[in-house]
Amino acid sequence: MGDLEGYRGQSLTALEAAGVSIGDFLSLEVDGQSVMGTLAPRYAHDDDSHIVIKLKSGYNVGLSVAKVTKVSRLAKGERPSFTSSNPKTRGDLLEVAILGTGGTIASRVEYRTGAVQPAISSEDLYSLIPELSDIARIRTEVILTVASEDLEPEHWGKMAEKVAERVAEGARGVVVTTGTDVMGYTSAALAFALQGVPVPVFVVGSQRSSDRPSSDAYLNLIGAVTLAVAAEFAGVYLVMHADSSDELLAIHRATRVRKNHASARDAFESIGIPPEGYWTRKGPELISKSLPPRARAEKFVPKPLFDPNVALVKFYPSMPTSLLEAQLASGLKGLIIEGTGLGHVNRKNIAVIQRFIAGGGLAFMTSQCIWGRVDLNVYANGRDLLQAGVVPLEDMLAETALVKLMWTISNTASAKEAEGLMRKNLAGEVTERSFPSGQTA
Amino acid sequence: MGDLEGYRGQSLTALEAAGVSIGDFLSLEVDGQSVMGTLAPRYAHDDDSHIVIKLKSGYNVGLSVAKVTKVSRLAKGERPSFTSSNPKTRGDLLEVAILGTGGTIASRVEYRTGAVQPAISSEDLYSLIPELSDIARIRTEVILTVASEDLEPEHWGKMAEKVAERVAEGARGVVVTTGTDVMGYTSAALAFALQGVPVPVFVVGSQRSSDRPSSDAYLNLIGAVTLAVAAEFAGVYLVMHADSSDELLAIHRATRVRKNHASARDAFESIGIPPEGYWTRKGPELISKSLPPRARAEKFVPKPLFDPNVALVKFYPSMPTSLLEAQLASGLKGLIIEGTGLGHVNRKNIAVIQRFIAGGGLAFMTSQCIWGRVDLNVYANGRDLLQAGVVPLEDMLAETALVKLMWTISNTASAKEAEGLMRKNLAGEVTERSFPSGQTA
Repeated sequence: MGDLEGYRGQSLTALEAAGVSIGDFLSLEVDGQSVMGTLAPRYAHDDDSHIVIKLKSGYNVGLSVAKVTKVSRLAKGERPSFTSSNPKTRGDLLEVAILGTGGTIASRVEYRTGAVQPAISSEDLYSLIPELSDIARIRTEVILTVASEDLEPEHWGKMAEKVAERVAEGARGVVVTTGTDVMGYTSAALAFALQGVPVPVFVVGSQRSSDRPSSDAYLNLIGAVTLAVAAEFAGVYLVMHADSSDELLAIHRATRVRKNHASARDAFESIGIPPEGYWTRKGPELISKSLPPRARAEKFVPKPLFDPNVALVKFYPSMPTSLLEAQLASGLKGLIIEGTGLGHVNRKNIAVIQRFIAGGGLAFMTSQCIWGRVDLNVYANGRDLLQAGVVPLEDMLAETALVKLMWTISNTASAKEAEGLMRKNLAGEVTERSFPSGQTA
Repeated sequence: MGDLEGYRGQSLTALEAAGVSIGDFLSLEVDGQSVMGTLAPRYAHDDDSHIVIKLKSGYNVGLSVAKVTKVSRLAKGERPSFTSSNPKTRGDLLEVAILGTGGTIASRVEYRTGAVQPAISSEDLYSLIPELSDIARIRTEVILTVASEDLEPEHWGKMAEKVAERVAEGARGVVVTTGTDVMGYTSAALAFALQGVPVPVFVVGSQRSSDRPSSDAYLNLIGAVTLAVAAEFAGVYLVMHADSSDELLAIHRATRVRKNHASARDAFESIGIPPEGYWTRKGPELISKSLPPRARAEKFVPKPLFDPNVALVKFYPSMPTSLLEAQLASGLKGLIIEGTGLGHVNRKNIAVIQRFIAGGGLAFMTSQCIWGRVDLNVYANGRDLLQAGVVPLEDMLAETALVKLMWTISNTASAKEAEGLMRKNLAGEVTERSFPSGQTA
């Protein structure tokens, strides 16, 4: 009987019946289609219903044994050397910390149907992507198991603290795996909390779960871990597919990136700037000439506090005053408005905002256009908002502005100081004007 | 003394001193730069401080006489024939109705500094764009003077009624000029209120005011009026610059277009589909093969009612339950949620939404990603939202969904009927799936 390490129950029975071993090149019929690849070992101990095939593309795909109608061996193979018998011993390699926080990436969802199980362990990771053991000594920890949309500011704080811990312990770089839904908010939060971080920190996720040949998890993780070892720069970045090919990742500035597609693998886009660089299997190609270099780790202290008493309100035509009034009455300290165009709301709400500011609240203007820059000097409603004390945030993304305000309020002693910090460019969240002021209207 | 029709005060004095006449080709020095073009007549009766020059590009530019340091005549010219002495008499041409509703386009802002004056008259229009008199018999009416962001649902109703009036009176086509800030919402509103309109209706605006050589007002209006005469199709469209050149307009489907840049002339983008077509001075080039043909006007009845008791809420990480609770308690009938990714909100708000629906409210899900399609079947929070009664709106834009819900509630007798209509594709607001369901996650 062949080597079928890790297989149990139904899947073991099916593979035994076909007389195949780990390492064999197989053809499996599933739903009338043939899936061809190398039979991989299993490291998931609580699943007996999937067969894992390593495709030529490098992806591992988990096939439900119930759907496999035929297993045939196309070629006899050697058991591939994944983790333990790697030519490089782990001690030769630099340590990369992977912090799991939930989301689809590298979770075990591929072995299940139904709800995502946001869990990750070294074994899971190596069984998904054995190549990682050639790149770095991976140290994984699940610090959160939270669906992306359930993340709270305190979770961002925890991520920042854990990153700092790993940095202090000598990690060459850190990879934070997280759900993509709010990944733009999360990467911005880490950029503010980890200002001056002496190593590179890459926030990654996957748009499609790993049980699909089209999953982006594989390349995103390989790229992020490789960059964590090889990059000469420090700072926080979001790394995801740059196009629909499976060969190119974009290295986005953490504060200027947005999820602009609900499902595409290249859903994330840098807004108003190109990505800082790209990554292919040949290595990184940087566009930016001004990324901070790596630095010594001793003195780094994170600032992980975020005040959740901040709201983001997208203005829409006919928005009644009652909406803002209700929110502002609830003890809110700060408000990010996503206005229309150059940064407008309807006239009737200007007085409400003015009262909020007069009472000590902080209000800032961004644009729901996403691209471009607010300018409150062009039209009367804009000038009245300025007069009321609303601070225009140039071309800062609304999502980044929300997170920055949460961070700023926690890291300043007064509203005035917080306003001053909001106007400063702390982590590349605002770009320099690319055209003269007169052209914006 | 030369012909200086319409010039008064300072500007008349300056032109008389230079000994020039309307029609002369001049060079004016302004802020150290030379502006060259033909001296145009004035039709603005309350302004004496601007000189209007027709540039070679076709634009009229209004120059503040206080900034003009030198006026020189490069060539003697004939007074150009603008309105009255046009070779074609107006009676030869078909009638195009232009409805002014406010905003920058074709307003008199170019003759002023400071606040925009949303006013338009036939004289103003012809003085801005004399070519219009070659294209159509223009009938203008200012039906509203409202800044874009101050538009209310009742204003959309008024626009729809006025369009229907003009159609009944025989207009070949209708152009609605409006501010760009909420133009995507406005075009969607007109598309729902004017379903089955037998002529083409073009919603246009300008991103830059007409006093700048770079203004987009000129081409947008020329294009819209030309299309109103020449187009063989009916329906509501948004027409704006397609790129940064000044030669190409895009004809966007009214329900799938969004202002994606705060200031660029090509700020508007069709989302998830190409524009229905393009327009150049050579005429329209249609992409869509399925635009409705023109039809007889007799039977057309608009449906101009919109219920404003509807809110759009963009979800953000950590959104407290108090925010939605306050809104839902205010007598709201319907809620459009702009969720993250495939259409998610945090777990704690699901119960709030469930109570709203249980109490007779209507709740719908869209995505803040803008591109892509919601899918509530992939993750647990999504399935719980479905269970609570939230209706996913496929790839409908959040802005279009808001307007459609306002319209739908006014045009149905029960919440159940309204929900049914929201699920139907009424005006091209939802596209067919472009990929199989399994690929969305």
